[in-house]
Amino acid sequence: MAVRLIKSIPEMQSEAESLRLAGKRIGFVPTMGYLHEGHLSLVRLARERADVVVVSIFVNPTQFGPNEDYDRYPRDLDRDLRLAEEAGADIVFNPSVEDMYPQPYHTYVLVEKLTEPLCGASRPNFFRGVTTVVTKLFHIVKPHFAVFGQKDAQQAIVIQQMVRDLNFDLDIVVAPIVREEDGLALSSRNTYLNPQERQDALVLYRALQKARQLIDGGERSSEVILREMRKIVESVPSSRIDYISIVDAETLQDLRELRGDVLIALAVWIGQTRLIDNMILRGLR
Amino acid sequence: MAVRLIKSIPEMQSEAESLRLAGKRIGFVPTMGYLHEGHLSLVRLARERADVVVVSIFVNPTQFGPNEDYDRYPRDLDRDLRLAEEAGADIVFNPSVEDMYPQPYHTYVLVEKLTEPLCGASRPNFFRGVTTVVTKLFHIVKPHFAVFGQKDAQQAIVIQQMVRDLNFDLDIVVAPIVREEDGLALSSRNTYLNPQERQDALVLYRALQKARQLIDGGERSSEVILREMRKIVESVPSSRIDYISIVDAETLQDLRELRGDVLIALAVWIGQTRLIDNMILRGLR
Repeated sequence: MAVRLIKSIPEMQSEAESLRLAGKRIGFVPTMGYLHEGHLSLVRLARERADVVVVSIFVNPTQFGPNEDYDRYPRDLDRDLRLAEEAGADIVFNPSVEDMYPQPYHTYVLVEKLTEPLCGASRPNFFRGVTTVVTKLFHIVKPHFAVFGQKDAQQAIVIQQMVRDLNFDLDIVVAPIVREEDGLALSSRNTYLNPQERQDALVLYRALQKARQLIDGGERSSEVILREMRKIVESVPSSRIDYISIVDAETLQDLRELRGDVLIALAVWIGQTRLIDNMILRGLR
Repeated sequence: MAVRLIKSIPEMQSEAESLRLAGKRIGFVPTMGYLHEGHLSLVRLARERADVVVVSIFVNPTQFGPNEDYDRYPRDLDRDLRLAEEAGADIVFNPSVEDMYPQPYHTYVLVEKLTEPLCGASRPNFFRGVTTVVTKLFHIVKPHFAVFGQKDAQQAIVIQQMVRDLNFDLDIVVAPIVREEDGLALSSRNTYLNPQERQDALVLYRALQKARQLIDGGERSSEVILREMRKIVESVPSSRIDYISIVDAETLQDLRELRGDVLIALAVWIGQTRLIDNMILRGLR
């Protein structure tokens, strides 16, 4: 069956309502498009659990800062439609910016506390844009469940808190990070990297591997682990660290000692491109 | 048929989902309880247009300021159940504060601009509390439409903007102000007034009547009308003006000249009780 492209918000909303009334289970994968294997793994996961899989493709302006890459963010709808269909999507929802943010537009959803550290520190309006657009998309697509990638670890935690706090009647599924053969986490932004930078970008994964090695060997001091991770990242001249953090995987507060469920996350500039990666370790003692 | 009392959020949510799947139209009247004829007029209006009428009774702590009347706000569930039933409610939803705001709670819905003037100026967290709890209640009760009173004019405008901005798939119905015989707008807070204050409280309505008289006579200067309204309110010693404003009924921006759709709104302390009232005039030329 061919994938159906819907651009109109009222059309998507009434289609979703009809599907629900017909007893169909709607699985939803929100994306900014330029789909890669990471996104497609989310679509396949949704396919397994849903009667109807909706993929949204919307480069959301409200989650980009004024000096960020909104304008040059990669876009290719024809390619996305083909890839989404191959992965099992039934509907691709691709609204316009004008329809999503009709003027005057005044309403925002904010998750406090969890959005302050990590990516929230260097991207002050990012999560406000994410939680707002996800709320809007949930109201339009009316899913029974939505799939997010572990790649954006803080985003997944923030969305889970928002769903709980605002009583959205849907489930959030978090799917594992998909990596290239050499370990680089898939990202639409990897297309920005030149061949040398593509090589240098491996330091994010290598730093996480080093952390795991140390932890497997019994190390529990954040200071020691962070120092070794920083050394690896700083070993390539194109890198500039935004943050490398070891935090509680629920509260996102910094940990001195690794204990319980731990998130190790980093954001690193490789040349002009900001990349993120992370690892969750559960039940550390 | 006896009204059904639901206190559990998951029970209300699954009941709402079943009703929707059965093709029933859900009408919703959110209240803080201590129902009076104003609320009951909203319930009756919902009754005319819905298969199932849900009335929520929840004194929402997040919309009260630290020095406001949350603790002494009047509550009487048994009376509310009886009155709601008589007016045609099928379900009364009465959740606990602990269930509505489980700790840690971090998420808020904010409507900017429209929440800054009028009541927003003297009650800085009020509308954040209102828009957040209404979002939660919409997700729990899943109404096809919700009824709000014109008495809280700014609230109705803010909620309409929120529904539009966040793509809630439901209609907002705004119902007219209900008044006592002598003109006082009904409010649960009227119970705070002693006999003398009850008499003094009439200055709000009298000021609005004076404004209408002047406008009917051709007056279009806000300054002139506001001066006359202030005189009336200040004629009783128990009164203290919070605001008296003449604003555009859509943007809530102050108007110098009355033109188009105009909201005249006032908030006045009578002794220890803050009362509000308003009037909308459409299509002024």
